[in-house]
Amino acid sequence: MTQRLIGVDVGGTKIAVALLDGTTLLEPVLQPTKTSSTETLVAQLVGAVRAAGDVAAVGVAIPSVVDWETGRIRYSVNIPLQDVALREVLREQLGVPVFVDNDATCAALAEAYDDDGLLVARHLVMFTVGTGVGGGIVIGGRVYRGATGAAAEIGHTVVGGDLRRAPFARSADYPQPGTLESLASGTALNEIALECGLAAGRVIDAARAGDGHALAALELLGRRLGIGIANAINTFDPDLVVVGGGVSAADELLLEPAREEAARYLLPGVGTRTEIRRARYGPLAGVRGAALLAGQELEAELEDAAREAAAR
Amino acid sequence: MTQRLIGVDVGGTKIAVALLDGTTLLEPVLQPTKTSSTETLVAQLVGAVRAAGDVAAVGVAIPSVVDWETGRIRYSVNIPLQDVALREVLREQLGVPVFVDNDATCAALAEAYDDDGLLVARHLVMFTVGTGVGGGIVIGGRVYRGATGAAAEIGHTVVGGDLRRAPFARSADYPQPGTLESLASGTALNEIALECGLAAGRVIDAARAGDGHALAALELLGRRLGIGIANAINTFDPDLVVVGGGVSAADELLLEPAREEAARYLLPGVGTRTEIRRARYGPLAGVRGAALLAGQELEAELEDAAREAAAR
Repeated sequence: MTQRLIGVDVGGTKIAVALLDGTTLLEPVLQPTKTSSTETLVAQLVGAVRAAGDVAAVGVAIPSVVDWETGRIRYSVNIPLQDVALREVLREQLGVPVFVDNDATCAALAEAYDDDGLLVARHLVMFTVGTGVGGGIVIGGRVYRGATGAAAEIGHTVVGGDLRRAPFARSADYPQPGTLESLASGTALNEIALECGLAAGRVIDAARAGDGHALAALELLGRRLGIGIANAINTFDPDLVVVGGGVSAADELLLEPAREEAARYLLPGVGTRTEIRRARYGPLAGVRGAALLAGQELEAELEDAAREAAAR
Repeated sequence: MTQRLIGVDVGGTKIAVALLDGTTLLEPVLQPTKTSSTETLVAQLVGAVRAAGDVAAVGVAIPSVVDWETGRIRYSVNIPLQDVALREVLREQLGVPVFVDNDATCAALAEAYDDDGLLVARHLVMFTVGTGVGGGIVIGGRVYRGATGAAAEIGHTVVGGDLRRAPFARSADYPQPGTLESLASGTALNEIALECGLAAGRVIDAARAGDGHALAALELLGRRLGIGIANAINTFDPDLVVVGGGVSAADELLLEPAREEAARYLLPGVGTRTEIRRARYGPLAGVRGAALLAGQELEAELEDAAREAAAR
């Protein structure tokens, strides 16, 4: 029997809810994110899932640091979820198994599988380049979460720190100076663009229309991202590096310089099998991955329960 | 029955060979590395293992990029092993199962277990700070090797690149400018020391004797290493970060500033359970890990064979 699984992708501006029927993701329902309070947002999530009808399990992708074991949200940047036991609250209100994970992690899971649900990359590192830079890791076809669920905040790794002498530069807020997020996010792209007199948010369109400044801005961003990609390849020697998020719409204007720069920093013999490409599922990777996650984790919970029952 | 396993740690200056009897590592036999040619080095390894008597399997730790599936050495910096099918050559000559892996990876495996062979850290990242900076990753108690075996060259990740504008700095050789190895290795420590008029190779002793310049040099190195550690924690959210290699002899003179600096760059909610400490097995981590690796991989090969036999 094919299970009906729901994926929910909670963004800073909109929420996407979609049903995964077998391996087919149905057209997602979009609505603006209600960010006025924690209660309002939780109520919105409950309502959006209920509207989708009966389901076996729900996966929720959020732009947050998640404590996987307890399902608590530890830290969020753009949405009102700080220290909230989101998984338990949603389980109580919905009455079905709910799993909550970081959005870039969910997107990474989606990208590791193809349309037929077959594994295409055993080890995968994902970068989501949007307002910030998110990271997700898949190892052996499963999400890698680390000791507590907080991995993989690759956007917050330092790549361009001035480390000649201490004290090193430091910000009161995140992202810290010299981090990949501070240098290679959509926000950083807008900063580069402003210096050249381009309008923020119009860089990709301008580059496509052949504007030299816009092309140069995307190239610089791509080369910086390439350093982050080189770091990921030297560390993980993965099968696949995937770039998603809003800025990945620039496609090869971003990815070509990124690939070229990454290649320069790889230790000989590392990354010989690694492919670097744009996210296949684009803006739907998060919601698709959330639904896949729900399926994988539901299965794992059932297996655990069966093992426990057999042991009694 | 307890298996006799041999660990071999091949360094640029010496080779250590030791027997792992159950979970007890016997006193290693040391000899200077014969680096005149590939043939001489291979003959030395064969002789050293044979001298140890009958064994069930051999693990070899080498400072190289290894193709795990084939056991070929792809790239080495300090020893004459380039594109050599080391595992096959040793298996043929020794007539027992041989497994070859990167030395920092072997050291990481050793550090994940205690003296009784019990797992103490499910997810672990190891830094070996010596002439260079090596990296090893343990995930779920097993070595993480990536798609081809070339992970985890964390020393070659860029942490201090000047990424304001392209082209970025680039070296004809490794380490590349701005990498952790170029900034936080023993070689970098000697460079900092020379600037202060200290003798290379004497910094740790001078610091222990209270020399202010030497203490400052170790503190700067520790803070740079701390950035690399922060990157590893933001990426992996591990249970444990271990610092080994020759420079780790500086102990808290290096680790205290490293911990302090790392804490400043962690995204809130990440690394809440991560301990940062010196390698427990010191210079013996590589040889101990090589022997443990031989045991784990021998078991895995036997299980695979049993599964195949059952399937027939």
